[in-house]
Order: sequence, then structure tokens, then C-alpha cells
Amino acid sequence: MRVAIIGAAGMIGRKLAERIATTGQIGGQRVDAMTLIDVILPEVAIDFAGVRDAFVADLAEPGVATRVISERPEFIVHLAAIVSGEAEANMAKGYRVNLEGTHALLQAIAAVDGYHPRVIYASSLVVFGAPFPAQIPDDYHLTPLTSYGTQKAMGELLLNDYSRRAIVDGIGIRFPTICIRPGKPNKAASSFFSSILREPLNGEKAILPVAKDVRHWFASPRAAVTYIEHAATMDTSHLGGQRCMTMPGVSATVGEQIEALRLVAGDGAVALISQVPDANIASIVAGWPRNFDTVRALRLGFRAEKSFQEIIEIYLEDEMGEHVGQRALR
Amino acid sequence: MRVAIIGAAGMIGRKLAERIATTGQIGGQRVDAMTLIDVILPEVAIDFAGVRDAFVADLAEPGVATRVISERPEFIVHLAAIVSGEAEANMAKGYRVNLEGTHALLQAIAAVDGYHPRVIYASSLVVFGAPFPAQIPDDYHLTPLTSYGTQKAMGELLLNDYSRRAIVDGIGIRFPTICIRPGKPNKAASSFFSSILREPLNGEKAILPVAKDVRHWFASPRAAVTYIEHAATMDTSHLGGQRCMTMPGVSATVGEQIEALRLVAGDGAVALISQVPDANIASIVAGWPRNFDTVRALRLGFRAEKSFQEIIEIYLEDEMGEHVGQRALR
Repeated sequence: MRVAIIGAAGMIGRKLAERIATTGQIGGQRVDAMTLIDVILPEVAIDFAGVRDAFVADLAEPGVATRVISERPEFIVHLAAIVSGEAEANMAKGYRVNLEGTHALLQAIAAVDGYHPRVIYASSLVVFGAPFPAQIPDDYHLTPLTSYGTQKAMGELLLNDYSRRAIVDGIGIRFPTICIRPGKPNKAASSFFSSILREPLNGEKAILPVAKDVRHWFASPRAAVTYIEHAATMDTSHLGGQRCMTMPGVSATVGEQIEALRLVAGDGAVALISQVPDANIASIVAGWPRNFDTVRALRLGFRAEKSFQEIIEIYLEDEMGEHVGQRALR
Repeated sequence: MRVAIIGAAGMIGRKLAERIATTGQIGGQRVDAMTLIDVILPEVAIDFAGVRDAFVADLAEPGVATRVISERPEFIVHLAAIVSGEAEANMAKGYRVNLEGTHALLQAIAAVDGYHPRVIYASSLVVFGAPFPAQIPDDYHLTPLTSYGTQKAMGELLLNDYSRRAIVDGIGIRFPTICIRPGKPNKAASSFFSSILREPLNGEKAILPVAKDVRHWFASPRAAVTYIEHAATMDTSHLGGQRCMTMPGVSATVGEQIEALRLVAGDGAVALISQVPDANIASIVAGWPRNFDTVRALRLGFRAEKSFQEIIEIYLEDEMGEHVGQRALR
């Protein structure tokens, strides 16, 4: 089959493209062709046996959605988005890309008779906003507290409606916060969740800007790719009208993250973390969800890590080329 | 203040304009000017002391939203919509008017520095879809089962976000099914809820296409205008992020509607109703909500009728010029 990845230059998009290239398939289905689209050229270092096409385009621009589907990909992964901070700072841009871009894709598909691709839509935990129950179920009401969360919630509603009309076979994936992100710290308020682990694992100092009892919902980059692989070929006939769901993950406090680091990398790694409270980050994080009931996704076969130690070990394997068994025994 | 009514040619829009013209105020605030907008010329027979402007325009067309707010109305009532049946039959038109038209209005307001009008957005019970709890609370998750319901739910999310950013002071009103609608029966699946009462009250025969145990949520046209009047000047400081809510109404079965008709108009009126089952209408109505918990709207001061008899009496007063006390004693 043909796969199109929109937002292929991002971290999850690159990892997904690499995984498809390496295995030659997704969810057990052979992939003959792959189209990679992003606003910057998706430079994926892959050795792919099939037909590979990549282009730079903005889904919200006229005609782009039609071009994305011109080869009728059977499987479309829509990861492109203006992220939370930028969507808040630049309201018009966020609505244009996150809402209008998503709608343009669905409208372009609707305009083609008999075309009914599977569409994976990247949604977010922030379709939910505080106050929260102890565990947020999939049928909790949508209460976004940011423009980004609003746009993602609107995209979920679109996906449900276009799936109900059998224009697409949609699955909306609410990603946990991905941890440990490879690379450098960035300006996202959530950056510290990865950097307090990644930097010490690389022998560098890290700053913790919040209290250790801050709790959040996590999964590894490998789990993020696994969700999409599962969604590629799962049976969607039992989804009914509700096509979007929170993915399984690990609910952990910052303190639990640090204890997992200690188990994997020892006291020396933990000693590299300095607590430097940042009231601004603390107040942003206070509105974030902490724990989810993902029984629906689990029943449908989605999987993630079961402990934070596992999340750290996956970073060592995938990003540092280490064998986990070895390191875990240190 | 200046009031703009978008969708002023519809039943609620006309009644609202007439009410403002008659009283010269809304919610206790003097109205100096009124702008009426619709896709057909809003022909409101009113004797209004203030400045009155009316024009034909489609909010989703470029430039129209900017024109609607060119005089900076402090109070905007957005009632314009492609209704449920048409939005289902013509998907593109429904999204264009109901989603893009609404967004165009909010974007036009955002483009004007220092302008912060109160915006009343007409939403609908069908942002909720079956299965339902016994009473649907305001924090029930949005599960629309139609494109119209999807568009209304998306409009609610927009209104929340644009209110959070202090671009508008929005209130989303989920209207009950308005009963008794004046005029002729129409092709809406809900038409019979009014016609089984209206036709007998006018000495004409009526057809009941569903079972008598069908339950639904109702309010009078007079209550619909009252919601908007209350929303015009209420204190919105306690609404928080959730700007939309279901309005108070009367939960009644068709059997209870008919018994209320008997109380008001006697056995002769009831005898004019023939039960002719229609499987298509029955199946549509089966997915509709039946009962709501509107404690939030009640606490905020919204009011509706307390019985179906009251709803019928209001029709007699407002549409047939009768004194209720007199008729109720028959």
C-alpha cells in the first residue's frame, strides 16, 4: 500500500518513516510507496526499497491537500501541527494550520468518489483542561484551555463526522507526552520532563523547574510509532461514532521519573539534576492532565510502556545504542 | 446600545427583533440601533424608535462579517444556520455556513482592537448524541451524530476559546426544541411536535408519526426570546471556560403533550390527532436527547416554562391573541 505522512519532518514522523523503510511494511501490510510532506524538507536518512516521494508544502494552502492525496494513499498519517506555545502566541496561524489544514485534507478526500483512506489524526491530551477527575476517561467532556487544545478538539469532531459519513476511516490518537525526546532541550514548558533524564544520561547537568510531586502522562517515542503501526491495520468496525481516544501510557510523578533514573543510571546521574523552581512553568503544568483511564485503547490493542524505567531503557536502546539488560544491571 | 441579529428572518430572530422594537430595550439596556442580517430580507413588521438597518448577506462570504460589525454592535445574536436536515444533505454548505460563517464572525471581531462585544451563539441539543444518561448534564461529553451537531459543537469550542482570549464575551445557548412553532408544518423530523398541537388548536387534523412514549425537551418561542434577553446583560464573570449550556425546558412525552392539549382545548381537539407510524421519523427521533439537568443555566437566571400546559397557553396568547385564563377554564 501507499502511505502518506504529513508532518514527516517532526520527531514522530521521522521515526515512523524510518521504521516503515526498515521493515518494508506497516501493521503487517507491505508498503510499496511512501510520500513525506512537511513545511521543511523531510530529510529522513532511510534506505527504502519502495517508491519514495517527499515535498515541502503547507496543508492549509490552496491545492496542497489535493496534491497530498493525488496518488490515493490508502493510509494517511496527519501529524502536522502548530504546537501549543506557537498556537497560543499566533492565534491566526494556529487556526489556519491546525483547523483549516485538517479540514482541507478531509474535504479533499471527500471530493474523490470512492476513495476511503484510513486517516490517523494526531490529537493531544490538552483537549482536556482542568479541573480533572483522578483518572480522565475517554468520555470526559472536551474542555480545552488553550487554542491548540481547542483546534485539536475541533479536529477530533471533524474526524468523527467524516468517518461517520464513510469519507475516511479515521482514528484519532491522543498522544501522551513523549519522553525521553532525543536531541536538545527546547522552549516548550514540557521540555524538562525529558531533559531531567536525557541530560544526566549523557553526563550533563539538568534543571528541574517544578516540584517532585508533579504528575503527568508519558510514553516513549517508540510507543508513539507503535500506536500508529497498530492503527494502520486494526479493525475499526467497533469504534462507532467515537473515533478518538487517549493512548495508554505511564502516569508518573517527577519524583518517580528521578527514581527510575537512579535505578537505571545510579546516584551519580541523579546528582546532576538541580531543582530551580520556575513559577511560570509550574503554573502552566498545574493545568495539565495527570492520569488517564485508557481501557478503551487497551481493549483495542494499543500498548505502551508499563513503567518509567522501561521508558528510560528505550531511550538508551534507541538513541544511545546500548543494550538495556547490561545497563539495567549497573 | 446597538444590537445586531444575524439570522433575523428566522422565527426566533423575528420575535427577538419585534420584542426589542416594542420595548425599546433588551435586558434593561436601551437599544438605540438594530441591524438585521439574513440570507433573505428580514421583513420584520416593527415600529422601532431607534435606527434600524437591514441587509441581505451570507456570513460565510468574504467581507460580510466585517460589514456586520462595522458599526461595532455591543450585542450580537448569531442565530444564522443551515438546519439539521439540510446540513446532512449538503455537507459542504453546512460546514461553510455553520462552521466557517461562525468563525468568520469571530475572526472579524478579533481583527478590531479594543472591540469586545457580547456574542450570543445559538447552539443545539444535538451537540449530544445517544447513548444518553437519564438526564444530560452540561459536562456530558460532546457526541454529535450529525454534521449539524458537529458544526454546532465546533462553534461552541470556538466561542469558548475566543471568550477565554477576551475577544468576545460569549454565551452559547443550547435551545430546546421550540414548541409550538407558529405557521405551517415543515419537513423537519421534529415538525410533528408542534403540529399535533397547533393544528388541533386551529380546528385542523394532525398526524402523529411516533409512539406516545417518545420523550423530548421543549420550550416556547417566548422562552427562546427570554433566554437571549437574559443573556444580553447577565454577569458572565462566573462562566469560566465553559461558555455554553443547555437552556431550561420541559421534558415531556408525546402522551403528556396530548394530555396538556386536552386540558387546554378539550377532547374535541385531541380527537383531531391520528396516529400514523412513520418508521423513518421514529428512528431519527430515537437518537434525540430526552431530558436535561440544567441546574447551571437555572442558577445563572435562565428560565422557561414549567409545564406543557403553559407552553400551549403561550401559543394561544402570542399567536392566537387569546387570554389564557379564559381558555384554560374550558
